[in-house]
Amino acid sequence: MSRTLHLNAFLMSTGHHEASWRLPESDPRANTDIEHYKALARTAERGTFDSLFLADSPALWGDVARRPAGVIEPLTLLTVLSTVTEHIGLIATASTSYNSPYNLARRFASLDHVSGGRAGWNIVTTAGPAAARNFGLDDAPAHAERYERAAEFTEVALKLWDSWAEDVYVGDKNLGVWGDQRKVRPPQHQGRFFSVEGALNIPRSPQGHPLLVQAGSSQDGKNFAAQHAEAVFTAQQTFPEAAAFYTDLKARTLATGRNPDHIKILPGLVPVIGSTEAEARERDAELEELITYEHGQETLSELLQLPIELLDLDARLPEDLPQPALINGAQSRYELIVELARRDKLTVRELIGRLGGGRGHRTFAGTPEQVAREIEFWFAGGAADGFNIMPPVLPSGLDLFVDHVVPILRRRGLFRTEYVPGETLRARYGLPRPVSRRFVAASLDPIHVN
Amino acid sequence: MSRTLHLNAFLMSTGHHEASWRLPESDPRANTDIEHYKALARTAERGTFDSLFLADSPALWGDVARRPAGVIEPLTLLTVLSTVTEHIGLIATASTSYNSPYNLARRFASLDHVSGGRAGWNIVTTAGPAAARNFGLDDAPAHAERYERAAEFTEVALKLWDSWAEDVYVGDKNLGVWGDQRKVRPPQHQGRFFSVEGALNIPRSPQGHPLLVQAGSSQDGKNFAAQHAEAVFTAQQTFPEAAAFYTDLKARTLATGRNPDHIKILPGLVPVIGSTEAEARERDAELEELITYEHGQETLSELLQLPIELLDLDARLPEDLPQPALINGAQSRYELIVELARRDKLTVRELIGRLGGGRGHRTFAGTPEQVAREIEFWFAGGAADGFNIMPPVLPSGLDLFVDHVVPILRRRGLFRTEYVPGETLRARYGLPRPVSRRFVAASLDPIHVN
Repeated sequence: MSRTLHLNAFLMSTGHHEASWRLPESDPRANTDIEHYKALARTAERGTFDSLFLADSPALWGDVARRPAGVIEPLTLLTVLSTVTEHIGLIATASTSYNSPYNLARRFASLDHVSGGRAGWNIVTTAGPAAARNFGLDDAPAHAERYERAAEFTEVALKLWDSWAEDVYVGDKNLGVWGDQRKVRPPQHQGRFFSVEGALNIPRSPQGHPLLVQAGSSQDGKNFAAQHAEAVFTAQQTFPEAAAFYTDLKARTLATGRNPDHIKILPGLVPVIGSTEAEARERDAELEELITYEHGQETLSELLQLPIELLDLDARLPEDLPQPALINGAQSRYELIVELARRDKLTVRELIGRLGGGRGHRTFAGTPEQVAREIEFWFAGGAADGFNIMPPVLPSGLDLFVDHVVPILRRRGLFRTEYVPGETLRARYGLPRPVSRRFVAASLDPIHVN
Repeated sequence: MSRTLHLNAFLMSTGHHEASWRLPESDPRANTDIEHYKALARTAERGTFDSLFLADSPALWGDVARRPAGVIEPLTLLTVLSTVTEHIGLIATASTSYNSPYNLARRFASLDHVSGGRAGWNIVTTAGPAAARNFGLDDAPAHAERYERAAEFTEVALKLWDSWAEDVYVGDKNLGVWGDQRKVRPPQHQGRFFSVEGALNIPRSPQGHPLLVQAGSSQDGKNFAAQHAEAVFTAQQTFPEAAAFYTDLKARTLATGRNPDHIKILPGLVPVIGSTEAEARERDAELEELITYEHGQETLSELLQLPIELLDLDARLPEDLPQPALINGAQSRYELIVELARRDKLTVRELIGRLGGGRGHRTFAGTPEQVAREIEFWFAGGAADGFNIMPPVLPSGLDLFVDHVVPILRRRGLFRTEYVPGETLRARYGLPRPVSRRFVAASLDPIHVN
């Protein structure tokens, strides 16, 4: 079978361009409007996207003057969206630094149950002090420690999801026997960060466990992804960089003993679509003109974890910036942005203009044909298994993609024309349904067990 | 205006009687069947119930052999139910011992947004070691400490819900000003149990904050309820006990400076309904016969937090049981059960039979007319503002109540015949919409602020 392209719709308020809310067409309160999100989910499903995705951080970020502030908590929002869609996967970001494994594993298993096997978890460690200070800490734990915690958190979550065998249920009303206690195995986990004794209080979910997604591209992030991730969202500005990342991560995955086909790599793409290339470029310029540069400075200061005083709008980035490994924020995004500014010799103002569309993700302005060709080039050239589509403006940017780019991808045989009824998210991404590792080794033959 | 009766539908799997799953009519897998719960919610809404309610503990309890095990996590389930109902309130239990205030406040505000102001939070401290051991503890914190944490947790949650003024939104696209930063006030909370710096990342919700519900009836529980609760679920076996509890809690509420009308007291009621009294008693006996006494012993051991060895089926409870205040479990339930057993001189087997229907809540078997009369007697006599209806068998017990008891209550002018369109849960319970206490004192006049 030939490879299948995978497309994820990354939904965000009025769009990924930071100035999108200022367009005449946009509703600035879309960020908390449930009807807005329902319509987006239906559009993405019309476009037979594999999944949709919501980012998250448990903090109110920056100044509410600068951009639409506040969101519906992602798992709550996805639960609503599960009721107005039938097929599309539902991926929520949740932090391993500011949750308990028992609570979070329950919530994802619950979403997987109510959605019929469509849940995905984007595992993040959450950089920055703002979130930390909402959970009793002065600052986020160090980068390496966050990833150690994330690894143990994921291990515990997997033990919890594996704590029920498939066939616990007996249902003998006459004897009054509901289930088989031997088929429930409490994790009894004792680790550095977590002690979790008991089994999950929900039966094994349709997918066994949610699709595990990861979005960090630092060294720690890539090693974590190689071990655990089934899909990876990544920011890549150029084809060679993306191809190198792709090759590296597939090799790391193989080195952990996993099948490299079982990790799907989806770079972000901000498609600015016009009926001509000139129209697309105009749209891009229109958005850039609406950027508030003071807000851009704030965003950049947050992304780079650098004081705003170092970011003079009409100068280049300072020469003597710290190495990525010394940064306690999102290391790979820092590296990408600094590299972009140096390579293209950008002032901070120009850099903000370039980042405005996708916070470091690649913006591509062109006709539907050009966007489709670019997607095919990266996909066929070994730089991507698919794309994390980040429309600059919502809902119009998703409509344009679904109505004009998806049909081209379908005609070329790159993308599905319909869903397989009843298919889980995991199956759609070409991943096997996990067998509970806690029930593989042990025999449960009722006759021979003492 | 005359007092209005309030009715809450307490939904649980195949019903509140522990043997209900063994009836021929029951689906033993209803506990995780989302369609089962959707149908129950629609029935409760057809009966114009004020609200529906889900209990919770973050642990798998007991032996899966004995009864249907596993649940959909309550806030997830209520989010689904919000999409198939329009009016009914949605109350979830969540623990102050095993959650972070920031995460939980977000989730309830999110449910309040997506449901249009129908969210309620049943605040519990969670007794017993099983949950504690899923969160890195050997046992639950001591009773008093749990309540101290609950009080601070609630205070922080209120600060978070109050961190956005009503009118943060400005929406000036031309100037690029989305909101007014001065109308967001971070809690900056530093306390014994929690440090929470930042504002919530979701705007103030339709109700201001969810309805606050409480269900503990110990001394600590009653004091907590007097300060914070807007509705109280309680287990009361007899009219005099219920009336004494009612009077006591209203007085305690007044003593804290609150309006005693702003705390609604709803005793639990397990209505076993028959078209004749004899038929109702038969139904009750049929259920009692299906009880597995070994399971009953386990339940009782959990409720009383006593070793199972002390619970000989054919003997009475031991004479020398500890005082309620020395129990680290659910103190008021312990007191109620011991009192019931002593008063009626019950063996453990008989006690299990009596408790089988509602775990200490009052079972009443009779005709619809008798059930309605009993409800009116308690309501009019000052023992209740309404009832927490706990059908012994679901869905049939809720159908019977809605089709046969509710019409009688309506004919007598005790209960609503329709919902007020757009009414929030809080308004339905006769409670004012809270004003943000963080924005009452300060002037926000834009002209005079420096």
